[in-house]
Amino acid sequence: MSDYPSALLARLSLNQETVRQWSLPQLADGCARAGVRGVGLWRAPVHAYGVRAAARLVRDAGLRVTSLCRGGFFTATDPGERAAALDDNRAAVDEAAALGTDTLVLVSGGLPAGSRDLAGARERIADALGELGPYAAERGVRLALEPLHPMYAADRCVVSTLAQALDLAERFPAAQVGVVVDTYHLWWDDTVGAQIARAGAAGGAPSRIAAFQLADWVTPLPEGVLLGRGQLGDGSVDLRWFRERVEAAGCYRGPIEVEIFNPALWARDGAEVLAEIVDRFRTHVG
Amino acid sequence: MSDYPSALLARLSLNQETVRQWSLPQLADGCARAGVRGVGLWRAPVHAYGVRAAARLVRDAGLRVTSLCRGGFFTATDPGERAAALDDNRAAVDEAAALGTDTLVLVSGGLPAGSRDLAGARERIADALGELGPYAAERGVRLALEPLHPMYAADRCVVSTLAQALDLAERFPAAQVGVVVDTYHLWWDDTVGAQIARAGAAGGAPSRIAAFQLADWVTPLPEGVLLGRGQLGDGSVDLRWFRERVEAAGCYRGPIEVEIFNPALWARDGAEVLAEIVDRFRTHVG
Repeated sequence: MSDYPSALLARLSLNQETVRQWSLPQLADGCARAGVRGVGLWRAPVHAYGVRAAARLVRDAGLRVTSLCRGGFFTATDPGERAAALDDNRAAVDEAAALGTDTLVLVSGGLPAGSRDLAGARERIADALGELGPYAAERGVRLALEPLHPMYAADRCVVSTLAQALDLAERFPAAQVGVVVDTYHLWWDDTVGAQIARAGAAGGAPSRIAAFQLADWVTPLPEGVLLGRGQLGDGSVDLRWFRERVEAAGCYRGPIEVEIFNPALWARDGAEVLAEIVDRFRTHVG
Repeated sequence: MSDYPSALLARLSLNQETVRQWSLPQLADGCARAGVRGVGLWRAPVHAYGVRAAARLVRDAGLRVTSLCRGGFFTATDPGERAAALDDNRAAVDEAAALGTDTLVLVSGGLPAGSRDLAGARERIADALGELGPYAAERGVRLALEPLHPMYAADRCVVSTLAQALDLAERFPAAQVGVVVDTYHLWWDDTVGAQIARAGAAGGAPSRIAAFQLADWVTPLPEGVLLGRGQLGDGSVDLRWFRERVEAAGCYRGPIEVEIFNPALWARDGAEVLAEIVDRFRTHVG
């Protein structure tokens, strides 16, 4: 790998759900051994291990936490559910700060049961961003609104395109609310290049792009469509095009996180999977 | 049903795949008995029955064929495959004309194996429309380009939004190429209202909206995501909003076709399913 552009490899981050078979200590050790310097963490395994212990573990391994997944689920109409969601998101902000990451990824939430009001649900997301943004920024954490593929619009996230995410984010200071560019969710959209440029064109710092995540699109989709993401290079996404667009926007040189939910990867040896990811990253992204 | 607006009921059409359990004679008889005056047909069952025989059967039952599904699959790069697709589409045009419908629905095709070039695939669709449009128009048939949900972008249709479909259609005369508005594919998109208005705003006749199809969005999606459409009213789509937008565009008062692919409907008595559709249509669309 002597020809590998080390500046780019230094940006590679492994989202822990990509290697769900690994415990947190295995993750920290495995990344350190592979020369991968960033990890994206999820709240549930961090809770199970303990937030402070996880922060120490990762720090001691020389790793940076590039993002915490996830807050969000802001679309309930019931006041009690809504208050609980906001409380939970404040806790998530605190956890992100404790882990030393500046990025809390948000999955905004789908339609409440029986509702068909997409516009109303999107407004409730804006309301929540307005409430949480200052709280997060005071703690050095940015809310990273993630547009999810339109196939999740009903049950997980009514924010389906980068344009919609930017429409929401731009109502707030860039230090409070950014967006996630995830190739799996956005690859099909012929306006995504222009929207990436829009995210960069606002100028100043920080950029609206808070995180950049990679997965490939493969078919057929599995039942429930959650666990069908493809290894880099196995599918339809022009990953290098995305990286070049994000960099051309002139505003994002941060971590590039690989986040693949796929039981076929979980069934394999974690170190072998990570070595494959590094190799695929070099071939298809670098 | 004395309070039912008969003008709207007269526009209801049943796509035959919604009641796949019915043979063509059962379909013709069942629709006539239910007072449904239009049917959308598919090429395979029509071939099996015979094109001329199917045309006679439907005509004798007093039914109108509102569309034929489907042509398309234009994205191959191999010259032989491409020529075969064009030949097959000319045959589909001929069949549409023989069945007395002016609407051939096109599913444009996904990415060729190993390709990641969405823009190139879309250009090959434009080339095919240019070749087939005059042939179709001479036979009184319009090519109806259908944007499919982005979850089909890789393997079925690289045209994922109404904006993309109109971008392609508007390169050609409105008498040659129109678009399909199908609620199942488009419901998540916050720009769809503006794009429906665009389809109508071009003015003159015929409108760019060549067909209007209904199905509801329900979750979880099944493996392969092809057969998970919901009965009207069971899901997340504001069907009435769509009908009102299409009519407000000032350009479409044609058939409203119900096209639901769902094994749970196929397992039931066809007449019972159709009666339920009429009832749901009244409640959620009328």
